[in-house]
Amino acid sequence: MTVSESRLTRITDPADPRIEAYRDIRERDLVRRHGHFIAEGKTVLQVLVAQDRFPVHSLLVLENRVGGIADLIGAMPESVPVYCAAQDVMDAIAGFHIHRGILAIARIPDNIAIPPEPLPASWRTVLLLSGISNHDNMGGIFRNAAAFGVDAVLLDPQCCDPLYRKAVRVSVGGVLRVPFFRTASMQDAVERLGRNGVAVAALSPAGRIDIANWKPASRQALVLGSEGHGLAPEWLTRLETLSIGMAPGFDSLNVATAGAVALHQLRTARGD
Amino acid sequence: MTVSESRLTRITDPADPRIEAYRDIRERDLVRRHGHFIAEGKTVLQVLVAQDRFPVHSLLVLENRVGGIADLIGAMPESVPVYCAAQDVMDAIAGFHIHRGILAIARIPDNIAIPPEPLPASWRTVLLLSGISNHDNMGGIFRNAAAFGVDAVLLDPQCCDPLYRKAVRVSVGGVLRVPFFRTASMQDAVERLGRNGVAVAALSPAGRIDIANWKPASRQALVLGSEGHGLAPEWLTRLETLSIGMAPGFDSLNVATAGAVALHQLRTARGD
Repeated sequence: MTVSESRLTRITDPADPRIEAYRDIRERDLVRRHGHFIAEGKTVLQVLVAQDRFPVHSLLVLENRVGGIADLIGAMPESVPVYCAAQDVMDAIAGFHIHRGILAIARIPDNIAIPPEPLPASWRTVLLLSGISNHDNMGGIFRNAAAFGVDAVLLDPQCCDPLYRKAVRVSVGGVLRVPFFRTASMQDAVERLGRNGVAVAALSPAGRIDIANWKPASRQALVLGSEGHGLAPEWLTRLETLSIGMAPGFDSLNVATAGAVALHQLRTARGD
Repeated sequence: MTVSESRLTRITDPADPRIEAYRDIRERDLVRRHGHFIAEGKTVLQVLVAQDRFPVHSLLVLENRVGGIADLIGAMPESVPVYCAAQDVMDAIAGFHIHRGILAIARIPDNIAIPPEPLPASWRTVLLLSGISNHDNMGGIFRNAAAFGVDAVLLDPQCCDPLYRKAVRVSVGGVLRVPFFRTASMQDAVERLGRNGVAVAALSPAGRIDIANWKPASRQALVLGSEGHGLAPEWLTRLETLSIGMAPGFDSLNVATAGAVALHQLRTARGD
């Protein structure tokens, strides 16, 4: 499969206003983007093109990488511009060396913020994240959520943005596969799950039940707290809590890794 | 607990030859260090001080962080210099902003390279790493190995250095807790394990046994291959292979995360 020249928009001037959204990517990471996010690399682009929650706005591709994503370009509407540039132009636009050679801008619709009420009956496995502020951890959690077939992720207000560039990249597109929703507070999220018949359990090094002996509910939410401080004591008291058995003296797993162990255990306990 | 002034060596000139080993840390990361490595932060220093495989050579500490590690300084021999500097001097020495404020140099003894023969009978759980070339992954694997009580890690020649600065940091000191050894080749490592009565199984997305149904041996090695290409087909044919059940269409776990799931499963299956 090849891409016809007429499908491409050649960019030769880094100051071209048409590629404004790609300019100075790293500096713009520091301020919140309004209504769009950046996806990098072929693997993430594959996930982006395969979903319809976040419409693709445009692509900026290194000229020698166009052939390698011809099928993905073919799968997108003709109305999506495919900008194409040489390495030096692309690097000058982005403000650093784009070695993957593939960037996309996608739109964030207004209606993704709030979880539906009632929660869809199809949701069997839900993650509830509290105070996950590190983008690597956020990306890792979504990568694992996608791998283990999590149906939705709820975020409390202290969580960082899953659509931040680095989180998207680390998730290998998982943030585009697993629907996520902001909630007003932990209280709101836990109540929402409860009145919809979804059981809630929290992962904690001090958890009362060894996760190896855990019997998850048919509809189950798992709470992951911030890596530094863990979940607020209030929630550790109010919720069922699960621990992962570890060697003495080093009970330290990364929060995304702990979540993966728990999701695998949940899947195994259910016989999925 | 406090640290007496006489225990500290004040550094006011970034060009002071006594702190040569701390100079231009990032540039030196690019060449292999000879016989020593750098540990950063209080948590890693705690692990470093608690072990005796890698003797501490010296410390370089921000002046306002000395009080917070007084107990660790007290636990080290008086012969280990504790250099102490203001933030601007410390940053000028290291070549970038050292926000953790705590650096240590430790020695790598000559005799750590080759696994003992016979392998110690106390080794029940061993990791064998093949072609793990990313320092984040290496650090993550060791963090998980320490958390799940792995007895030793064997590395094939294509693995990167677990004592590289970033790997040490990501491991949260795990590389200092779990003994590791270089082997001449995968062939050598697998034979060595076999003749010592240690069973060998490899983790692979194409694995023949679902790890949830796996019955590990009483002495068991688990092989993790490179994230990009996976384990060489030769080994997937010759070894028992294990897969982790995932959602269709996204069978993508980070290698360190997959290793954590497998180590937890191994621990659970044994009833540890």
